[in-house]
Amino acid sequence: MEEIKIFAPATVANLSCGFDVLGCCLDNVGDEMIVSKNDLNEVRITKVTGQDLPLETKENVAGVAAIALLKHQNSQQGFDIEIHKKIKPGSGIGSSAASSAGAVYAINKLLGEPYSANELIAFAMEGEVLASGNAHADNVAPALLGGFSLVRSYDPLEVISLPVPSELRLVILHPRIEIKTRDSRSIIKQEVSLKKAIHQWGNLGAFVSSLYTDNYELLGRSLKDEIVEPVRSILIPYFSEMDSLARSNGALGFGISGSGPSVYAMCRGNENAEKVKEAFQNFYEKKDIGFELHLSGINKKGVKVL
Amino acid sequence: MEEIKIFAPATVANLSCGFDVLGCCLDNVGDEMIVSKNDLNEVRITKVTGQDLPLETKENVAGVAAIALLKHQNSQQGFDIEIHKKIKPGSGIGSSAASSAGAVYAINKLLGEPYSANELIAFAMEGEVLASGNAHADNVAPALLGGFSLVRSYDPLEVISLPVPSELRLVILHPRIEIKTRDSRSIIKQEVSLKKAIHQWGNLGAFVSSLYTDNYELLGRSLKDEIVEPVRSILIPYFSEMDSLARSNGALGFGISGSGPSVYAMCRGNENAEKVKEAFQNFYEKKDIGFELHLSGINKKGVKVL
Repeated sequence: MEEIKIFAPATVANLSCGFDVLGCCLDNVGDEMIVSKNDLNEVRITKVTGQDLPLETKENVAGVAAIALLKHQNSQQGFDIEIHKKIKPGSGIGSSAASSAGAVYAINKLLGEPYSANELIAFAMEGEVLASGNAHADNVAPALLGGFSLVRSYDPLEVISLPVPSELRLVILHPRIEIKTRDSRSIIKQEVSLKKAIHQWGNLGAFVSSLYTDNYELLGRSLKDEIVEPVRSILIPYFSEMDSLARSNGALGFGISGSGPSVYAMCRGNENAEKVKEAFQNFYEKKDIGFELHLSGINKKGVKVL
Repeated sequence: MEEIKIFAPATVANLSCGFDVLGCCLDNVGDEMIVSKNDLNEVRITKVTGQDLPLETKENVAGVAAIALLKHQNSQQGFDIEIHKKIKPGSGIGSSAASSAGAVYAINKLLGEPYSANELIAFAMEGEVLASGNAHADNVAPALLGGFSLVRSYDPLEVISLPVPSELRLVILHPRIEIKTRDSRSIIKQEVSLKKAIHQWGNLGAFVSSLYTDNYELLGRSLKDEIVEPVRSILIPYFSEMDSLARSNGALGFGISGSGPSVYAMCRGNENAEKVKEAFQNFYEKKDIGFELHLSGINKKGVKVL
């Protein structure tokens, strides 16, 4: 195989109760990438459409992730990477993660799959370091593995996959303001109250249980964050209004997607998700901020060949 | 039914990764209690054997828990409670919780079961307030429900039961020094680093996953606590030596039981548990501190009628 075209999905990290350790993969929101071997012994970003992103390999997250993999593999093989961005950078649904995960997935395929999907996570995380200054895995892991990913440990890196209740749907609203992950991280306090931390791990434990038992009500009650969301939500327009709107329209839970500004509503079933989406649309159309709305199931496969 | 004799089991709370939210119930360690109706419209502690505990109803955790239930039920019925203590108070394996849980379980039975086991937790927690100044549920919940209990939320109280991998065994060593839960709580810092809190919720999430998937290795790796154990273990004799001993003998994990001084080793299978128990015994016999050793499976039923 000399060339591969892939779909690199968007992801929702944190999901309220799982700051820095939890994320899930979206079905119908994502970038396309075309990766091909070249004879130049180097990785090149040959084309970017849809967004204005660096073509300099070492300044592009896909390039950095690709180099990390090739270095570990001791490979001199060169690659050309085309990125067709559909996910907006800075939207909070894993734009950089999609590019990083897509690049390492494609190169691994073209090299004959020396690595498992789980092993690719560490390489893709190098792209996250470039994007946000922080080696977080809660976007790249679900982008590569699909479904829900839980980062048990960062050192050593251990990511586990969790089951996906089949009726889960996500409605994502992206208000067109940009919040850099880097900035959004800097406002979080590095010390938290033990009491709130206990609430957080109680909720995350219950969330994991709810995925194994298809307990949608428990899942909804577990989607809480008393630590990070109260601070970050200040940066997000109409956060509390959207929260009320989601819940009054039957959403299981609501919160910030990644570091924002996108917000997510977790819903049970298409019908409920459509209702929440419509409520969001009606609300935001009357405001002065542009927006995108997505309704997506949860993608169990992660990055895939097109 | 006028009288009931019950077994009120010991419990291991916290289990390293689940401070204040996680606990499990032991099989063969526990108190016996005899509870009977009286015609005096009052709750009396008529007998305590095995330990020197208050007979004054309002100073005895079983009495306080019983009164909480009867008050909620608006019942004038009186009860006599006999407690035959086998669990040593202050040992860290839920001595007060066994008495509180046993009392409300027995009275509920004698009243014709107006409450579910889950509803009894709140009443038993009143006994914990008397014992430690803190309304924690991580001992009374598993004592009443059996198996593993996770407290998702304290306000409102919500406890969920988690599955029990069948080969799990616990070895408990109780060094005969007394640490009051109240004192053991007072040394814990009320602010924790966000980084360590993230590790903790990653581990608790993975622990819950391991119970659903019978993944013993993951379970072992998840039994970590960077927040409370590093502080509390200072009060526990030979903590790090016992930790090494447990792991070098094949235990899945090791940590403090509740607020100590008991420690637990989580093992897979009887054979491994026997080996760890023997190693603990050989080690402690050479020391100047008296001790008790227990090897127990996990009790899926909780309090039961004898």
